[in-house]
Amino acid sequence: MANYLKLYPIPEDYRFHRGGQISQGLLAYETWGTLNEDQSNALLILTGLSADSHAARHGEHDTAGWWDYMIGPGKAIDTDQWFVICASSLGSCKGSTGPCSPNPKTGQPYRFDFPDLCLEDIANTSVLLCQSLGIEQLQAVIGPSMGGMSALALILNHKNYTRHLVHIASGMASPPFSTAIRSLQREAILKDENFNQGYYSATNWPEEGMKFARKIGMLSYRSAKEWNDRFPRSLKKVPQHPFGIEFPVESYLEHHANQFIHKFDPISYLYLSRAMDWFNGHQYGTPRGANPLNDISLHSALVVGAETDLLFPVDLQRELHHLLLDSGVDSELIVTDSIQGHDAFLVDQQTFSQLVGDYLSASAV
Amino acid sequence: MANYLKLYPIPEDYRFHRGGQISQGLLAYETWGTLNEDQSNALLILTGLSADSHAARHGEHDTAGWWDYMIGPGKAIDTDQWFVICASSLGSCKGSTGPCSPNPKTGQPYRFDFPDLCLEDIANTSVLLCQSLGIEQLQAVIGPSMGGMSALALILNHKNYTRHLVHIASGMASPPFSTAIRSLQREAILKDENFNQGYYSATNWPEEGMKFARKIGMLSYRSAKEWNDRFPRSLKKVPQHPFGIEFPVESYLEHHANQFIHKFDPISYLYLSRAMDWFNGHQYGTPRGANPLNDISLHSALVVGAETDLLFPVDLQRELHHLLLDSGVDSELIVTDSIQGHDAFLVDQQTFSQLVGDYLSASAV
Repeated sequence: MANYLKLYPIPEDYRFHRGGQISQGLLAYETWGTLNEDQSNALLILTGLSADSHAARHGEHDTAGWWDYMIGPGKAIDTDQWFVICASSLGSCKGSTGPCSPNPKTGQPYRFDFPDLCLEDIANTSVLLCQSLGIEQLQAVIGPSMGGMSALALILNHKNYTRHLVHIASGMASPPFSTAIRSLQREAILKDENFNQGYYSATNWPEEGMKFARKIGMLSYRSAKEWNDRFPRSLKKVPQHPFGIEFPVESYLEHHANQFIHKFDPISYLYLSRAMDWFNGHQYGTPRGANPLNDISLHSALVVGAETDLLFPVDLQRELHHLLLDSGVDSELIVTDSIQGHDAFLVDQQTFSQLVGDYLSASAV
Repeated sequence: MANYLKLYPIPEDYRFHRGGQISQGLLAYETWGTLNEDQSNALLILTGLSADSHAARHGEHDTAGWWDYMIGPGKAIDTDQWFVICASSLGSCKGSTGPCSPNPKTGQPYRFDFPDLCLEDIANTSVLLCQSLGIEQLQAVIGPSMGGMSALALILNHKNYTRHLVHIASGMASPPFSTAIRSLQREAILKDENFNQGYYSATNWPEEGMKFARKIGMLSYRSAKEWNDRFPRSLKKVPQHPFGIEFPVESYLEHHANQFIHKFDPISYLYLSRAMDWFNGHQYGTPRGANPLNDISLHSALVVGAETDLLFPVDLQRELHHLLLDSGVDSELIVTDSIQGHDAFLVDQQTFSQLVGDYLSASAV
């Protein structure tokens, strides 16, 4: 994987959406396929909160990526046809610069001195990266989950930079229910003594906070319906102590949360989580209340949601679809009956391969 | 209110469903209306987890009860007609004996020495209380939320003790999603240092754990839809410190959770919460897999759910309704479009007054 990781130096004069600058900032990114001569086959993938640039393997000996089933030669996002770019988000901890990166001025991690991060910053730096690769306009930006909101941030701030949009399991803004879940996740991390206002270390890690945050998040990633099938009613364990783990769903949460603890940086998690809650595409409407997508120049859009998604319920995709239609974009809305909730785009391979593949094929005509 | 609180001594030989006994156990209860001569007008209300015996005021100078709109002279549960009984659940901390009550043998709170509590114990001791009042058979048992499962426990263990059932926002067993939420609530309390394995005190209270548990619970009490209406997208506050309270939904959670901290006993909360997850009405089917309600002798049932309920989704009420029909009970299923989620029975007064009132009037014929 390391062979394929590339680094893009963010221009020193990049100003964050809410103010602030960083020096020697980097975006870690990967690409698949070949950019054609007229630079007309570029697809940018903007990721969910905890994903990285390794969206797919680069060859048979490479490790699998987080969207491996979707991207590759002959797959829905066909790398024989498309030049695909995926970066770790600015602010993340997967190679790109974030609050856990060293501040060149001090040699110490930025921690809370990292500028306030918005999804607009993820979008803006992604556009700078694409431009540095010689891409004047993207064929499409593809964003699932947080990436869907980052894609809207891109379109709202760079109105001509992409011809098409694939927007999956996301929306114009986080509903209060999702903000509440993320707020509790942030609270769990912040209140862990080991978090220590950002002054944690590898040997003094806010493990309990990260674990609990992950468990809370997991309430919203799948669906109650999927869990009904997954966890039998019969009890599984005799708890080791009063109120110890006993129910199958408790073991599941414990197992997956334990795996997550050291996979993500706590302060990066806070920054990205808050960026999701800050994003509000509606604020772009001028005058206030007008359709914020009125003056974008998108050719078409595919908006996808799953009926069982708790985190970005289908109301949000319907809303976006109607705003797109209203602004003259040829938008298609697909609501799947996938039972995997918010995670459907990662799990329901057949459904999502089909609809993304069909859309990209049609858009290429 | 204190004037109306009565105490029922639980028989010394009462054995808990999972084993164990207590001495000098009490149920705190209240009654409204007058038992008629042939004891045919008694209604038993079984409560939700955090409710107490004070379901309604006893007169104009009394404090309001938790179901005040529902119960009283001329109301849906008309105390001019019915003799209404409501007890604080066994194991609770509202006057009835629970794990925070002193163990007469030691003078110290039971803490984890309190016997394992099941909803069957709440049902069984409620039946003993009603029998002590001279009631040979209830006209109806009415149970919202946890009380709905306790009502099923009553029916499954005392097959002839009630003629009618009003089952609201509940089900035959907790789905894994609800168990997950409650598991995280219990974890939040248990991991608070002040919980100290149950050895907390009024001055050393697990405030953080109780507060966080309440916030997690609140994710499931209303609905995402109601919150969309309640919390405007515009930001409300400038946070006092990085990642401090900023979003309207965060203030809401903080405010209500702060109010709850000292309203309920932490160890009682754990016991009742686990009892909900332990309950499984399906286990009563003999042979295994048979309709567990096959040999109950209920005349009729009203099963009510709200389309927006996340904690006890309407699938559960549909399942119960079909089991009741299959066992020959004249069951009516009503799914409301209340947007208040699980709390609809407390908030959507008009809808719930109407349907409970209509059902009880019809059952009296």
